[in-house]
This record gives sequence, structure tokens and C-alpha cells, in this order.
Amino acid sequence: MGLVVQKYGGSSVADAEGIKRVAKRIVEAKKNGHQVVVVVSAMGDTTDELIDLAEQVSPMPSGREFDMLLTAGERISMALLAMAIKNLGHSAQSFTGSQAGVITDSVHNKARIIDVTPGRIRTALDEGNIAIVAGFQGVSQDKKDITTLGRGGSDTTAVALAAALDAEVCEIYTDVDGVFTADPRVVTKARKIDWIAFEDMLELAASGSKVLLHRCVEYARRYNIPIHVRSSFSGLQGTWVSSEPTRQIQQGDKPVEQAIISGVAHDTSEAKVTVVGVPDKPGEAAVIFRTIADAEINIDMIVQNVSAASTGLTDISFTLPKAEGRKAIDALEKNKAGIGFESLRYDDQIGKISLVGAGMKTNPGVTADFFKALADAGVNIELISTSEIRISVVTRADDVNEAVRAVHTAFGLDSDSDEAVVYGGTGR
Amino acid sequence: MGLVVQKYGGSSVADAEGIKRVAKRIVEAKKNGHQVVVVVSAMGDTTDELIDLAEQVSPMPSGREFDMLLTAGERISMALLAMAIKNLGHSAQSFTGSQAGVITDSVHNKARIIDVTPGRIRTALDEGNIAIVAGFQGVSQDKKDITTLGRGGSDTTAVALAAALDAEVCEIYTDVDGVFTADPRVVTKARKIDWIAFEDMLELAASGSKVLLHRCVEYARRYNIPIHVRSSFSGLQGTWVSSEPTRQIQQGDKPVEQAIISGVAHDTSEAKVTVVGVPDKPGEAAVIFRTIADAEINIDMIVQNVSAASTGLTDISFTLPKAEGRKAIDALEKNKAGIGFESLRYDDQIGKISLVGAGMKTNPGVTADFFKALADAGVNIELISTSEIRISVVTRADDVNEAVRAVHTAFGLDSDSDEAVVYGGTGR
Repeated sequence: MGLVVQKYGGSSVADAEGIKRVAKRIVEAKKNGHQVVVVVSAMGDTTDELIDLAEQVSPMPSGREFDMLLTAGERISMALLAMAIKNLGHSAQSFTGSQAGVITDSVHNKARIIDVTPGRIRTALDEGNIAIVAGFQGVSQDKKDITTLGRGGSDTTAVALAAALDAEVCEIYTDVDGVFTADPRVVTKARKIDWIAFEDMLELAASGSKVLLHRCVEYARRYNIPIHVRSSFSGLQGTWVSSEPTRQIQQGDKPVEQAIISGVAHDTSEAKVTVVGVPDKPGEAAVIFRTIADAEINIDMIVQNVSAASTGLTDISFTLPKAEGRKAIDALEKNKAGIGFESLRYDDQIGKISLVGAGMKTNPGVTADFFKALADAGVNIELISTSEIRISVVTRADDVNEAVRAVHTAFGLDSDSDEAVVYGGTGR
Repeated sequence: MGLVVQKYGGSSVADAEGIKRVAKRIVEAKKNGHQVVVVVSAMGDTTDELIDLAEQVSPMPSGREFDMLLTAGERISMALLAMAIKNLGHSAQSFTGSQAGVITDSVHNKARIIDVTPGRIRTALDEGNIAIVAGFQGVSQDKKDITTLGRGGSDTTAVALAAALDAEVCEIYTDVDGVFTADPRVVTKARKIDWIAFEDMLELAASGSKVLLHRCVEYARRYNIPIHVRSSFSGLQGTWVSSEPTRQIQQGDKPVEQAIISGVAHDTSEAKVTVVGVPDKPGEAAVIFRTIADAEINIDMIVQNVSAASTGLTDISFTLPKAEGRKAIDALEKNKAGIGFESLRYDDQIGKISLVGAGMKTNPGVTADFFKALADAGVNIELISTSEIRISVVTRADDVNEAVRAVHTAFGLDSDSDEAVVYGGTGR
């Protein structure tokens, strides 16, 4: 029995009852002989309430103080959790990110972890304690200031600690049963995935699946830490994310093979910008995307249409978070002369549907079947983008739910279908 | 213009509006040319809410985790205050107790300050910042764990920082205008005291005045740091507490002399325990108060009645916080055989009235006038205890308000009386 890192999100510790329930689960793992390190988020809506307070005193709260403020949330939940565990007769100590040795760079509000030096955690464990660590926070290497890791930071804390402590597994407890073949709120027949490879999970996360964030999966892949995503409200097995199907899964009744298609993800949080009438000459795209990058805007898909020979002009489209739309348009307009385009089009009524699966690399039929499923459902495709293990299309936002369901069914992912569609190849 | 330490209590920063108001006042001090260090408490009822949460998850929250929990409160207020100051165009940095160099012993929930090493504060000031420090908290010297200083801890933080930084003054901002000759809620004619000596303030604090706690005044006296208690809601001068009347006061229109009597304090939070029928022999009192001390109960007044020659038995009475009453009775009953008393009497319907003033040392008439005032008001005295600059009596709780008013008037402290009563001596 080795060391286990467990992470509990805000919804799992939303109130005193939740904290007590989580404490029982942690004690169970300890009783089973594990050394247990727990990473905990702020209770329920605490972080939002703190952000709200900050906005009341200052329209533009500064990085350093904003981080100092937000980290109070985890301080509360971790101390309460340690108390609740002690109340069950087990010893527990809580640690701030700084005390736990989570060393970051100095980029406030979205710091990156540089190093993890968990000496105090190791000592606490060796003395028989359960260690409770504040998620989402660290201390900057140069200035010793408190930092936060940004969105999904607690998951990253958990994976980073698991790597530094050489944990057997990093368990991410959440309010859903695991990773599904599609969003169960859209596709009622979505199936829980028992195991998924890091690469597929990365693509799902990048395509709109909210269960795990890209950054945390990337970290786990780099250090080869198996992640087990599961519900803190049930005792069920969740989804294992790792490089190979794990022992736990292999020991199950049914032999596990990697499905050709892992799942269907969708995302309606993006908008599309089209730069119309760009001279079709080398360097044009570079100027456009340098303009966007200088404005510190992250973009997603990029598509360039074929040039119309008669005019020598082309259109370039890209997608980006809706919240960044205004900024992108402003930046491009400001540099209109430098770029030399005719006009801009902005469209925030779009949605993206992505099909993810390592199997599609060796199965050219997948793409064709994907487009056919969309066509049969009467969904018009506006943009297409592919990677080795993913195909994404942009459609009207109104078509997204229908499109996801159609594709989910077409690829045999529905929970009542006998098995996944099998192509000539073996996947991998 | 030197360095000023300002302390703002929870009621001054109860909401976003309060924080913005306080920020303006801080910026004013900075604009006047001071280096400014601000110690801040948790917002309004935050600490009580956190205690409530702790009790929901654990009936006996442990010291270390309880401290970790409570310190989240100041973290929130200090970060918000720093943001609000920045929003006014001035630079500010917030520091936890640990970052500010407040080093304590390891007694969780009521740690004592061992040392203050404010290197980071000094650097922040030298770089032109306003430094915001979390009150009430520190870090333990040996284990580097977060500690809290117990009741009134933020005032102590402020005075300790003022001493370590060699501040000109420690300003304690609160929701009243200063220290009064009596509680204004009881005595409507109570007068604000312009200046009071450390010693008199210590006696007032020990006698029930809530404005400053004993511990903080003691610390200020030891390091000779002038305290200025004033309202954060008005621009008025408050009460100066120091070894000598300060320049600010001496420059006022009227020359300031120390009044013979500083004020009248009262306290209805105590109960009286009488140990009846104790053998009148050496060592008896020692056994009783060892029993009480071993139960970690702090007591206040002790009175031993004259022994009745016929029986060789005496009664010993003492007062203590009501909350400790049960514990004291239990401890004494448990050791009844060892002590050898007949019975115990417990009375929580008592009140204490204290007259404080350095002048009474050399004025024997004070005591007589004090008792006469009480007699004229028909107030019966149950216990008497004196120090060099204080007389305290215990009465029925119902008589306390009337007694305070009678004494206040008798000693010429009422705001409409021409001047304080003058005795033959000059006071000191």
C-alpha cells in the first residue's frame, strides 16, 4: 500500500456536512493502509464571494493582493477538514501551498509551478499524519510572495504533489462519476469511460470537456502519474487516466481494450473572427497572429480558405474565447493598415463539436463517418480542424446538442448499444 | 514626520464601504509625510463565522488547525485593504503575521510574541509602500506553525510592530471616540479622557474597560510606545495613553494636568465563589488557589474574611469570569478532602465597580468619598479590594449602573461639572 494523493473540489466541501463526509472517505483510505495526502479547494462559492468583495473595493485588483485574498478560501477548508479528521480519531495536519513546498514563478493569478519540495509533508506522513494541503496556491521563488495557480489550480497542485511524492495514484474527487463519452446533460446515453489514455484526455480537455483541465493532464502525463477521476458522493470506480490501462482496470471482469473513439466533446464558449480580404502572400498570417499574440489573446482553431485566383485575396478565420472577442477586434482594427485586410466579421453564435480517439489515426473511415453523421442530422459545417487523434468542426451554436447526440450514436457510444463501431484496423 | 502604526478593528472594516473609508484615512497619513504601517483585524463577524463552522465539524477543534482557520479572516481584510489603497493611487503591500516577522511561542490560540523581525516591512516602507499587516497572528519559533494571539491580539500586534519599528505612535482606531471616564452607555455624562498614564489605563483595563486590553497596554508601557485610541468614523482627537502627556496634548488650548481620578470602570462578566468554613491555618489559601491554577482558571479579586475565633474557621471569596465558574466549582469539589472546607457558594449576580487614578495614592480621602458615594446611592458593598491606584468593590449586579453614575458624579467627572474634585495633595 503506497501513497495516495486525493483532491476534493469545492462542491465536495461546500458545507460542514460535506467536509465531514469527505473526512470519512479520507480516513477510510488511511485505514486501508495508505499514506494519504489530501489537496482541497475552497468551500463552495467562497472564491466567487471573495472576488466579488475585491471588485467592490477596487475595479482592478492587483495580482499580489488578489492572490493573498483568494488563498484565504483554501485556508478555511483545509483547517476545517483537518479538524473533522481529528474528530474521527485520526491525526491530520494542514499545510498552505507555501508550507507544502509548492514553489512557483511570480506571475500572480496564474503562476506556474517551478518546483515542489514537500519536506514538511513527508515528515508529517512519516509521523503517521494525514497531510491536508491547500490547493491552487504556492509561493514565488524570488520574492516569497503568495501566488495562485489560476483556473483548475487545485487539480494541478494534486498532480504536482503526487509526482513529487512518487504517489501510486492521484485521485480527483468531483461531483460527477468520471469522464463520459459526451456531456451527460446533452447526451443522456453517454457512457462513463473506465480508462482513457493521457493523449485522448488532453484532446477532450482541449475540446471542451470540463472534468479535467488540460494543464493538469499534461502535468500528469509528463510525470506519468495515473489520475483516477471519481465522485466524492458515491463509492463507485470512476475514470482512470494513464499511459496504460491500470492494474485495477485490468483486474475487472471484462478485459479492457482501448476504444477507437474515446468520446465526443463540445464547446459553446467560443466565438469566430474572420479576417476578410487578406492579400494571399507569404507573411500575412504571421502579421495577423502576431497582432493577436501581442494582445495576449489565446486562440483555438485557425482556418485559411483557399485563395480566389481572380482577386489574389483570401479569408482567415480563427476561434477564441468569447470574453476575448472585443480585445481581438480592437487589436486587429488598430493594425488594419499594417495587415491590409478589407473587413472583419465577428460571430459568437457558434459551437464546436470534437471527436476524440487514438484509434482514428489508423482509420481514415472515421472522418467520413463523422461528416456523414452530421449531414444526416442536417448540421451545416462552417470550419474543420484536425489533429492526429481529433476532428473538430464549427457549427451554429443551435445545432451543437443535436450534432453531439448524432455523432455519439453513429460511433456506437450510446450506453444501450452493443459495442463500439469497429473499423478494419485494431486501433493501437 | 516619522513612522506611524495604525490599527483598525473589525467594526471599522466590516464591509467594502468601511474598507474604502479606512483606505482614505491611511492615504491621508501617508500624504502627511508619514511612513505608515497598518494592522488590520478580520472583517466584522468573520471570526465568529469561522468559529461557528469549526464547531460544526468538530466539537473540540485542535489548536493548530483552529489557528490556521481563524487567520484566514485577516488575510481577507488585509488583501482587500491593500487593493483599496492601490485604487487610490498609492502603493501598498499586505503581509501575513509570519511575513511581517511576528515570532511567537507555540501555545496555539493564545500565543505570546517572542520577537518581531520586521525586515520585509522595513523594505516595503523604504520602497515607498504602505505596509498592511494581518493582526492577531504570528508564526511559532520552533515549528514554523501559524499561531494566533488570542483576544485583543490585533492591538498587541500593532504595539509590538510599533516597538520593533520604533514608531512615533501606535494609533488604535475603533468605533468609539476614545477612553471615557466611565462607560458612556451607562453614564451619559461620561467625558472623553484626553490623556491617561499607562498605569491608570492598565487598572481601567483590568477593571472592565473594554477599549484597550491589559496585555496591549502592558506591552506599550514596557517599550514606551504612546498609544492614541481614536474613532475611525470621525477625525477627532481621541485618548493618548503614554508615560507623559504628549506634545500633541500639551499644545492644545488648555493646559493638561493629570486628574486625580482617571475614571470609573465596571464589569458584570464575573461571578463570585465563596469557600465556606476553611480551617484558618497557614497554607490553606495556597491549597485552594493551587487547585484553581491547576485547572487553568484565571481569577481576579481574592478576599479572606477575618476568622471567627470561636470556630477557627474562615471564608475565602474570589471572583472569576462567569464562563469559568463551573470548572472552578468542579475542581474545588474534587479536592474537597484535600482542602477541608465545609461548603461552596456560587453567585453570578454580582458586579464590580472600580475607581482608578494615580492621584489616590496620596489622597486618603478618596477611599472615604468613594464609599460615601455608594452609601448615599443605597448600594451595599460585598467585597473590597484595593491597589495603589485603584479601589474596587463588588455589589449586586442590579446596583452596578446606579453605583457607577453615583461615583462618577461624586468625583466631579460628569461632563457638565466645572472641574474635577481637588484634594489637598497635588496628585503626582
